[in-house]
Amino acid sequence: MEKFEVHILGCGSALPTTRHFPTSQIVNIREKLFMIDCGEGAQLQIRRSRIGFSRLGHIFISHLHGDHCFGLIGLISTLSLLGRTATLHIHAHRDLEPLMRPWLDFFCRGISFDVEFHPFDSKQPATIYDDRSVTVTTIPLNHRIPCCGFLFEEKRTPDHLIREMIDFYRIPFHELNRIKNGEDYTTPEGIIVPHSRLTTPASPPRKYAYCSDTTYLPENTDLVRGADLLFHEATFAEDNAARAKETCHSTAKQAATFAQKAGVGQLLIGHFSARYEDESILLREAKEIFPNTLLAQENLKITL
Amino acid sequence: MEKFEVHILGCGSALPTTRHFPTSQIVNIREKLFMIDCGEGAQLQIRRSRIGFSRLGHIFISHLHGDHCFGLIGLISTLSLLGRTATLHIHAHRDLEPLMRPWLDFFCRGISFDVEFHPFDSKQPATIYDDRSVTVTTIPLNHRIPCCGFLFEEKRTPDHLIREMIDFYRIPFHELNRIKNGEDYTTPEGIIVPHSRLTTPASPPRKYAYCSDTTYLPENTDLVRGADLLFHEATFAEDNAARAKETCHSTAKQAATFAQKAGVGQLLIGHFSARYEDESILLREAKEIFPNTLLAQENLKITL
Repeated sequence: MEKFEVHILGCGSALPTTRHFPTSQIVNIREKLFMIDCGEGAQLQIRRSRIGFSRLGHIFISHLHGDHCFGLIGLISTLSLLGRTATLHIHAHRDLEPLMRPWLDFFCRGISFDVEFHPFDSKQPATIYDDRSVTVTTIPLNHRIPCCGFLFEEKRTPDHLIREMIDFYRIPFHELNRIKNGEDYTTPEGIIVPHSRLTTPASPPRKYAYCSDTTYLPENTDLVRGADLLFHEATFAEDNAARAKETCHSTAKQAATFAQKAGVGQLLIGHFSARYEDESILLREAKEIFPNTLLAQENLKITL
Repeated sequence: MEKFEVHILGCGSALPTTRHFPTSQIVNIREKLFMIDCGEGAQLQIRRSRIGFSRLGHIFISHLHGDHCFGLIGLISTLSLLGRTATLHIHAHRDLEPLMRPWLDFFCRGISFDVEFHPFDSKQPATIYDDRSVTVTTIPLNHRIPCCGFLFEEKRTPDHLIREMIDFYRIPFHELNRIKNGEDYTTPEGIIVPHSRLTTPASPPRKYAYCSDTTYLPENTDLVRGADLLFHEATFAEDNAARAKETCHSTAKQAATFAQKAGVGQLLIGHFSARYEDESILLREAKEIFPNTLLAQENLKITL
């Protein structure tokens, strides 16, 4: 199966701790790297994880709180020192570009590549990235400032041809691509051989959903339905449910309830408040509702 | 003896490695904390070193390359989340304030304290900080952009009174401060008792000099003469002497030659190029010229 991995670079929240870096993740889909959020130290964590910098093309910033974007300037600066030439695309709220430009002009003089900003609207779900193999769609979230999650969806890969059947019907080479992509075959005599007789189905396309930072938003369950993996913030345990509400964050229980309603395969919780030295309380509370839950941690890699 | 410590938070250079954070140090003089440079991740390193954030009052930025200042915005943001109220003073090239202000306004809305920028001229040595116990003086350096090192000088502490002599001469209480600070005592009969008969000398004031980033600058030796500890950048070994010259950095040998000419007590080298996986070559080259040399490393604490 082709690669679809999520690497956690950081899963803490705004206050630094000795245990966590602020939020940042790398999604590797068929050796294309996408970054989600870029907290301070993200580039140090990429270096530690031995992920190659060069295959990173697109960065998605959920919202403009510092713990989700203060690592951008250092990362870009390093990519320039490394002589990158490919354009780097940053998808974020429109306020980011006017903040970043003066810093890029000053600190990255003579930068070796272009940085393109792609603003997105945080109110409506929209497909903001699309290539041969993957789409990225925004998931409107509810936080103190405009904020979106992201849904990474693999495109369906072609079905596998059954060599014996192709030979049996003497199907010409130029028909094969159409058949792989779902069509039936009509013989010169006009007989229709159904697609399903000629192929075995490709693996179902995989989905990764990222929801941080946000209050509990059950209206989003349809958007992420059936995701193989859901990352959902769980800043607080139930002991701080009031604080979660006040700061527009979620509790572990809310993250799990959301995962359950959305029928996802696995839940990964993160964005932990600095107050929990031992995060097992968060895991326990989530697992009571959604047993297939994992705690995020730095350098964790999950294969979908 | 009162506290005078240097904590290394990071001693790498521009490219991140798995071994080093970019440049940042904390100088603790009698429980007042001063920061020198603030590379990305400095706040994470402060947290790891268990140094309290709150006693940090003044930050000195040598020059406006990202690996010396990208950590500022995250640090300030965290100090605000922690509810700091005391003014934070940043001493830096005048270009820093106009770069930082829009970020502070955007990312630190409702910040709980004032941030004051104090520009300094990087061409002339000048005392840019002065209190009861310490002065900080700039050391003009030669780098690709305006750059200064910093000399931290303890002020002379009062001498220690010899209790028996004070009693013997029945010296009144109100005279004691003057005597501690260097004056002789004149008895009611007009006899002069010399200061040296009444006191034992205080420990000599200590000095810490920080020189990074810079080419080898022998003309600076008088400025740092007799420092107890000198931090000098040693980005390269002799194998890259040409590259050092080209990029306005120093080799380990040059750092050691400078230390020797300046007659300092101890040399600490750092700002290592990412190319040296094993920095012992830098230490070896420096020690050949100045034996009392140490390699900087993260979380190293040196007491002067």
